Amino acid sequence: MDETVNLFLLIKSAEEKTTRNGKPYLAFTFQDTSGEMSANFWDASEEDVERYRPGTVVKLTGKREEYKGSPQLRINQIRPAQDGEPSNPELYVERAPIKKEKMIEQFNKAIFDITNANMNRIVRFIMNKYQKDFFQSPAAKTNHHAFLGGLAFHTISMLDIARSISDQYPFLDKSLLFSGLILHDVGKVIELSGPTATEYTLEGKLIGHIVIIHEEISKACQQLKIEEANEDVVLLKHMVLSHHGELEYGSPVRPQVPEAEALHYIDQIDARMNMLQAAMRKTEKGSFSERLWAMENRSFYKPNFTEK
Amino acid sequence: MDETVNLFLLIKSAEEKTTRNGKPYLAFTFQDTSGEMSANFWDASEEDVERYRPGTVVKLTGKREEYKGSPQLRINQIRPAQDGEPSNPELYVERAPIKKEKMIEQFNKAIFDITNANMNRIVRFIMNKYQKDFFQSPAAKTNHHAFLGGLAFHTISMLDIARSISDQYPFLDKSLLFSGLILHDVGKVIELSGPTATEYTLEGKLIGHIVIIHEEISKACQQLKIEEANEDVVLLKHMVLSHHGELEYGSPVRPQVPEAEALHYIDQIDARMNMLQAAMRKTEKGSFSERLWAMENRSFYKPNFTEK
Amino acid sequence: MDETVNLFLLIKSAEEKTTRNGKPYLAFTFQDTSGEMSANFWDASEEDVERYRPGTVVKLTGKREEYKGSPQLRINQIRPAQDGEPSNPELYVERAPIKKEKMIEQFNKAIFDITNANMNRIVRFIMNKYQKDFFQSPAAKTNHHAFLGGLAFHTISMLDIARSISDQYPFLDKSLLFSGLILHDVGKVIELSGPTATEYTLEGKLIGHIVIIHEEISKACQQLKIEEANEDVVLLKHMVLSHHGELEYGSPVRPQVPEAEALHYIDQIDARMNMLQAAMRKTEKGSFSERLWAMENRSFYKPNFTEK
Amino acid sequence: MDETVNLFLLIKSAEEKTTRNGKPYLAFTFQDTSGEMSANFWDASEEDVERYRPGTVVKLTGKREEYKGSPQLRINQIRPAQDGEPSNPELYVERAPIKKEKMIEQFNKAIFDITNANMNRIVRFIMNKYQKDFFQSPAAKTNHHAFLGGLAFHTISMLDIARSISDQYPFLDKSLLFSGLILHDVGKVIELSGPTATEYTLEGKLIGHIVIIHEEISKACQQLKIEEANEDVVLLKHMVLSHHGELEYGSPVRPQVPEAEALHYIDQIDARMNMLQAAMRKTEKGSFSERLWAMENRSFYKPNFTEK
Amino acid sequence: MDETVNLFLLIKSAEEKTTRNGKPYLAFTFQDTSGEMSANFWDASEEDVERYRPGTVVKLTGKREEYKGSPQLRINQIRPAQDGEPSNPELYVERAPIKKEKMIEQFNKAIFDITNANMNRIVRFIMNKYQKDFFQSPAAKTNHHAFLGGLAFHTISMLDIARSISDQYPFLDKSLLFSGLILHDVGKVIELSGPTATEYTLEGKLIGHIVIIHEEISKACQQLKIEEANEDVVLLKHMVLSHHGELEYGSPVRPQVPEAEALHYIDQIDARMNMLQAAMRKTEKGSFSERLWAMENRSFYKPNFTEK
Amino acid sequence: MDETVNLFLLIKSAEEKTTRNGKPYLAFTFQDTSGEMSANFWDASEEDVERYRPGTVVKLTGKREEYKGSPQLRINQIRPAQDGEPSNPELYVERAPIKKEKMIEQFNKAIFDITNANMNRIVRFIMNKYQKDFFQSPAAKTNHHAFLGGLAFHTISMLDIARSISDQYPFLDKSLLFSGLILHDVGKVIELSGPTATEYTLEGKLIGHIVIIHEEISKACQQLKIEEANEDVVLLKHMVLSHHGELEYGSPVRPQVPEAEALHYIDQIDARMNMLQAAMRKTEKGSFSERLWAMENRSFYKPNFTEK
Repeated sequence: MDETVNLFLLIKSAEEKTTRNGKPYLAFTFQDTSGEMSANFWDASEEDVERYRPGTVVKLTGKREEYKGSPQLRINQIRPAQDGEPSNPELYVERAPIKKEKMIEQFNKAIFDITNANMNRIVRFIMNKYQKDFFQSPAAKTNHHAFLGGLAFHTISMLDIARSISDQYPFLDKSLLFSGLILHDVGKVIELSGPTATEYTLEGKLIGHIVIIHEEISKACQQLKIEEANEDVVLLKHMVLSHHGELEYGSPVRPQVPEAEALHYIDQIDARMNMLQAAMRKTEKGSFSERLWAMENRSFYKPNFTEK
Repeated sequence: MDETVNLFLLIKSAEEKTTRNGKPYLAFTFQDTSGEMSANFWDASEEDVERYRPGTVVKLTGKREEYKGSPQLRINQIRPAQDGEPSNPELYVERAPIKKEKMIEQFNKAIFDITNANMNRIVRFIMNKYQKDFFQSPAAKTNHHAFLGGLAFHTISMLDIARSISDQYPFLDKSLLFSGLILHDVGKVIELSGPTATEYTLEGKLIGHIVIIHEEISKACQQLKIEEANEDVVLLKHMVLSHHGELEYGSPVRPQVPEAEALHYIDQIDARMNMLQAAMRKTEKGSFSERLWAMENRSFYKPNFTEK
Repeated sequence: MDETVNLFLLIKSAEEKTTRNGKPYLAFTFQDTSGEMSANFWDASEEDVERYRPGTVVKLTGKREEYKGSPQLRINQIRPAQDGEPSNPELYVERAPIKKEKMIEQFNKAIFDITNANMNRIVRFIMNKYQKDFFQSPAAKTNHHAFLGGLAFHTISMLDIARSISDQYPFLDKSLLFSGLILHDVGKVIELSGPTATEYTLEGKLIGHIVIIHEEISKACQQLKIEEANEDVVLLKHMVLSHHGELEYGSPVRPQVPEAEALHYIDQIDARMNMLQAAMRKTEKGSFSERLWAMENRSFYKPNFTEK
Repeated sequence: MDETVNLFLLIKSAEEKTTRNGKPYLAFTFQDTSGEMSANFWDASEEDVERYRPGTVVKLTGKREEYKGSPQLRINQIRPAQDGEPSNPELYVERAPIKKEKMIEQFNKAIFDITNANMNRIVRFIMNKYQKDFFQSPAAKTNHHAFLGGLAFHTISMLDIARSISDQYPFLDKSLLFSGLILHDVGKVIELSGPTATEYTLEGKLIGHIVIIHEEISKACQQLKIEEANEDVVLLKHMVLSHHGELEYGSPVRPQVPEAEALHYIDQIDARMNMLQAAMRKTEKGSFSERLWAMENRSFYKPNFTEK
Repeated sequence: MDETVNLFLLIKSAEEKTTRNGKPYLAFTFQDTSGEMSANFWDASEEDVERYRPGTVVKLTGKREEYKGSPQLRINQIRPAQDGEPSNPELYVERAPIKKEKMIEQFNKAIFDITNANMNRIVRFIMNKYQKDFFQSPAAKTNHHAFLGGLAFHTISMLDIARSISDQYPFLDKSLLFSGLILHDVGKVIELSGPTATEYTLEGKLIGHIVIIHEEISKACQQLKIEEANEDVVLLKHMVLSHHGELEYGSPVRPQVPEAEALHYIDQIDARMNMLQAAMRKTEKGSFSERLWAMENRSFYKPNFTEK
Repeated sequence: MDETVNLFLLIKSAEEKTTRNGKPYLAFTFQDTSGEMSANFWDASEEDVERYRPGTVVKLTGKREEYKGSPQLRINQIRPAQDGEPSNPELYVERAPIKKEKMIEQFNKAIFDITNANMNRIVRFIMNKYQKDFFQSPAAKTNHHAFLGGLAFHTISMLDIARSISDQYPFLDKSLLFSGLILHDVGKVIELSGPTATEYTLEGKLIGHIVIIHEEISKACQQLKIEEANEDVVLLKHMVLSHHGELEYGSPVRPQVPEAEALHYIDQIDARMNMLQAAMRKTEKGSFSERLWAMENRSFYKPNFTEK
């Protein structure tokens, strides 16, 4: 089952540890687009600790083994990737399955449907301001859409479902639904530290992406000279504030317009389908997935009968 | 504000009561497609009690008034509707906004997409068996889709959303999702007493529509000589059993395949949008709806800014 | 027990209703500094409805009676108060037990102790901007400190407890604790409609006072050219955002610095003591108060043994 | 404390693992009627893995040791049991303290008291169909009555308590109470994989024993030509469906007849007493048991003062 | 449906009220062993209020009517019962179905089985001290066994179930189980005001029957010179403290010996069966009972099929 | 990072363990006033086990190392402390930051303010009886004020806050508040085993400090011939019984007088500030503390900006 490997990998984390008898070593987690793997680097010197920091790409020769049921690497040789080798960290992180250009096109189409003038201007202002980070950021640290461009991809995917629902239920206001939807998670570009070694920032922890994007709407209004007491602005703010659906999930208010209720459920269904898709990919037919913490700790069955 | 009326109405309920000083009267709730209204029939004789039972259509002359903030009728004259008059109770109940034929067409299209042979046969068997009641039944006693044909209409509407989601997430098995979706609420034709004076039946209360439809799948298998231990049958049963999502909402098991999770959320979103649509219709612009019990007792705001 | 009265009163609310036999009347709630009382005005004409709106001061002759265990007035004569009579509505609302000037003095003393420059400037900016409303506003619609100036009084009272606790626990940062404390409820001047006929505004319902004050801090920074990414600004925002203590009480984040935890508990203890003080005032010795909804629906005992 | 042993044992589980430095070994759990014990088999070959599967009886020579507070075996020699040796796996599993014949007698006595004809026939039909498995099956995978014949023993023990309660409360219908009680857990013969290496089956996980037995009642009716809409059949189904007492414990309906409420509590009390009996057996006088997960994670004290 | 009556009744409560147009009246609740009924006494004078206090037996002539679905009496004549008439209030309250002498006999039998000397002495001491009240007191103000002697009857009935369970599970210590059981609710003689107009006393509200009986055990030890630190005394105290099973039901500790767990469940089952018996008595065959607040607000079905 | 040490330390716990290959060793936790550290003593003989029991002071030479992120000691030499060396265990436990004499002074001042005669006598009686233990005991096993004298120090600190609040809210009865406050945790001297190797006693587990102190008040009354049915005694008992605020936190009754509500919140705020103070002391500026289990598992941020 063990096999020799010769790979370029990105260091995701590198913890300094000590063995029972006092020798220092580095506990690595490596990453490439196919997933993660751990390895211990025995007898690490001070220079090694310095050299192999998270975010570094390395060339590694070793053996694939199993330890306590999980795969791990035994390191034979390791060195930092050199010029001329694939040393750009972004090559090693999972990314959205559609191109950025394609996504931008779809956003433009949706923004075109926002006929309310204030909402249209606010959405375009904020998307402009954060465009670069928005198309890089994952949608979460670990759970759903946790990959490069995941935030934008999650939003695009939600737009599709929103179109289907608002066709079915024409009493929903498309301007309000689409602008709330596009903005709802943009605060994550400030809440999270970015796509490679994703952590929560101080603002992320102490303020949270929900209030952060609310503040951005307020700032956009001031820049654009839009009166914030206007009902449409208040409602747009309400959309982003209430999108977690329940106070105990961090929304300071619960949805109080139908579009906000719709947004919450579209967010849920898309996040859940994405998590399940990822989990099923790693599960054998005829067996159950690992327990998924963000899905109320359930584990899901992958049938034999189906083609997929 | 008061006005004289001259109407045909359906008696929805008729309670015998006594005034403080001992005189009997009948407390009516009338119904037509535009809603409900109450009225008291003073000094009701034994014959009146007999004559004006729920389900009877009456001709009524009176005045529209308000009592404790709710509209009510003051009865001047009342008599049962006669032959030649619109005396069919079904004329007075709200009904699905699309025709039965149109709905059948859409079901057939969906059933066509169920390529798994066992599921396809089971779905067609059950739909055949309950076809008549299925297209009459409301989807609930009071909350969502509580009208003639509401059950079928709710199911059709969910199919639309399911198509959009399964396009987005092709790892979902369409056969399983569509057959589970079509069957999920069919048990309500046994749980509820029908479209006119909808009540829970004894089986509805003591067994519940979730287990009722499960039993119907089992019976279909026996009739069709399908082996119930087959994985696809077990999964189809699981779909209907788990569609309330959480044990505390009456599902004996939680969703454990992705299609079951999807079904639960599609059901939620469609039921909620339908309830909100109905509530918004009754709400003035710029004000809040009444509290909606089935929406966690929230009340929802109808904006001024929008056209709708 | 009944007695004839001859009073000036403020109309707190005036609902149009209809008797069972269709006659319109006005159901009043009157208010003066000693409390509230209800009365029905029979056979109210259209002009009466117009004349006796909430916020009007009236002269009333009638009789004090009891109806279903609550006191009510029987109206003999009623007319709007005239010039030269005590017709200013503010004379009829309960007010804070200390003078505004005295309160301002105490705020200044506290602000003096905020040695952190950014916090000091932000607090002074916001207090200046909302000074007038802040000293008028109640602290809540119904529960605690629901009187003219209640918001300022509640804040002053909390400052006193905060001083005692920060003397006891010198590791707490006084600048952070005091500035968070002073600002924590200022959003209520926007959330609530003011001291006389207190209702929630649309922003109050859809955004809430917690996020409103957060936005004000952000705006103050922009005006004062204070960098919002500074740790002290982030912490001050965190103080106001987390002051409800738990997500389910409407804080989008839970307290994550000791000063925020302290603020939450000081707020609780002061609000609860104020509610109990008011309830005890209305309770006979040796008996239990009415149930207090905001105190988990408990009712409290007033002992015989004590002097008070 | 360590001692040399020479034993026949049943392999309950055998996990393939790898040491830190890459060597394969087998982690065994052995079982006999006195309990369980673990042991590691170092340097296991492919043939060993094949030879020592769960369910095999082995002869083992080794030493009893302690590791991290739990007893474990150090293996000196191991080989599969041979013909003529005690190689029947059932000899090594705990079993009900009374004989099967004695239990059958008591069931017959109870069935005799079921005077309602439909219930009597349904109970006899199902007990006949599953008789063999019913007297083998444990009542649960780990918690209560987790031994060979545990399901039947649990049911017998509940019948005794039920007799005492129905003597005390003659308004309870004995036919309904006894037939619901006898059937309530029969679904476990399908939910669980049997007495030796008890696991949940796919049907057990996706459908659950509560709905499984409901389906069996329905099938019995079809075979016996009993009309399922009869009130007594509906009530019998209700008994098994509601026996977990609360929706969140997996019953799709809550008890709605007194006999169902009684059944739920009798089930609880018997399961709990059985778990406590087993836990107390393993606890020293004057000390607390380990934490019992199924008893809300409490730990229980075994007194010194008593004889037992 | 109305009928003339001529009855002796006990006044359970008598509230002074005022009609809308200011006239005083008395709202009575009457009681006899068959249940309760309400009536209004119009134009009550000050003397009437004085004369017809709760606890008085009256002779009443009037008519049985129905008001808002509940039966009530229309009073024609009323006067206090006179000497020579059945004027003893205790004649009008429901009472335990077995005689006090018979109950005492059963208690003695149980106490005889308490072989632990300390427990035996403590139980006898307390039962002696409160004997008179214990055989009078109801077991609760409204819910279960709310009748004269209900407390003793509830305890007797529990003893029967306890015998059955301890026969089944001989590891349970009979001394501990029986003494805890007999004492568990004795505190109610102090918590409640007695059998006729049952209310909570101040000690009942502020301390509660659980802690009250704990204190009585402590006092008994002091009188009997029993060392309170003895393990058997600590355990007996633990039995009464933990008998509500969960902290949120008012037990300061959860059961931590098997006998305490048993006691809690026996208490539950007996209280629930008693409430259901009373509710079923008032329910028609083929219909549902009123909602039972203490049974999680469920309503229970009374079948047609059974004889009872 | 490792360093050689030469220290006197107190053995807090000493567990006998076995290595994988069967060799016995002792796993120590050592303690001095600066905190705790663990170490393994390899190849411990039977005599060593006997010699190095918890509570012993030892002299140790070794090296400070890190293992799995936590500091631990490598033992070179170890021997029990000898006469003439600092061998008194109390020297090694953390203690209250103010002297016992100073604390007594403050208690006397508070008791002086208890003007109610019964309360004053009861408080003095109990404080006298337990004075020695009270000034030794920690306030909890692990969470807040878990040090020598912590119980007294916690009480003193609460008195200070109580003074501030009762100045603010003069309707509170100082006698009731102060006597309840002083006694509220005295039961911990029986619940916990004392300041050096703090464990729960059997009474602590089965009865709990809340009911223990209630019993002490009852005993004090008997000794002092104070009538227990007096309202002031009932209220004092209520204060201690209700001080955990909610049933689910172990109070058998919820606060029902304002003084009891105040006590609960003062207890909370002081315990929380103390835990935070201790946690902040161990946290670096600009980083988050470890998760604090008793603070709802939150972790707290220590800012950079502040001096402290």
